[in-house]
Amino acid sequence: MKSPLSIAAVVAALTMALPAAAQFAKPEDAIKYRQSGMSLMAAHFGRLGAMANGKVPFDANAAAENAEVVAFVSKLPFSGFVEGSDKGNTKAKPEIWSEPDKFRAGARNMQGEAVKLSLVAKGGNLDRIKAAFGETAKTCKGCHDTYRAQ
Amino acid sequence: MKSPLSIAAVVAALTMALPAAAQFAKPEDAIKYRQSGMSLMAAHFGRLGAMANGKVPFDANAAAENAEVVAFVSKLPFSGFVEGSDKGNTKAKPEIWSEPDKFRAGARNMQGEAVKLSLVAKGGNLDRIKAAFGETAKTCKGCHDTYRAQ
Repeated sequence: MKSPLSIAAVVAALTMALPAAAQFAKPEDAIKYRQSGMSLMAAHFGRLGAMANGKVPFDANAAAENAEVVAFVSKLPFSGFVEGSDKGNTKAKPEIWSEPDKFRAGARNMQGEAVKLSLVAKGGNLDRIKAAFGETAKTCKGCHDTYRAQ
Repeated sequence: MKSPLSIAAVVAALTMALPAAAQFAKPEDAIKYRQSGMSLMAAHFGRLGAMANGKVPFDANAAAENAEVVAFVSKLPFSGFVEGSDKGNTKAKPEIWSEPDKFRAGARNMQGEAVKLSLVAKGGNLDRIKAAFGETAKTCKGCHDTYRAQ
């Protein structure tokens, strides 16, 4: 249990401290940063999804690693939604900045589910992974529907 | 010492298993993936550099967190240098694919220095962080000079 707990602790620490530490010289740097984080999450979450949906054979180690990456990287992108980064090469909707508390709550919800998913994935039970994957996917969709332009 | 050792173990596990697990539907997906990873690393390494170079005040917690992200994310991008991803929106030079062993050795060298840096950063000693930052920066530059077009 050492590794999962430590990862959860790291993730918790990142959640608290990173936004304050985040610094971007230009709004476009912040946009690139958050998009990079979202891209990495999408790639690894997608690999989990392929296993959860039976499109590729289940590999417990790969599932655990992919979930670990999702949980870790999930903490990063949100520091990139800085003031002034609502214009340019972005699908971010104005609601992110007009209802920041709701947006942050959605992000924290996703981060929590991602940590749960990573803990479940270490257990290696495909049915439990499928369930946790589904719960996490809902939290992605929840924010994307509201805060990301199509 | 629990957290640093666990992170090192996670990083070691990712190093071994991720390349085999990596899957990209199209070469451009692989390019986007590796560039996303490099972008995140650059952002967090840059924040460490700003502290190491005295451009922003030293913050031990922020330094440790940034180094942690660099070490974790350093394992990801290299699975994106798949065959066929040498063309398109990329600065990757052909040498990556013509001398893959040398390229991989350079990547592993950087990953090792990044893990050392993250361990040093947890210690909170700015002089030691500066030294470890410098060693890591050399490994970035080593590959960029050879394998990345200007």
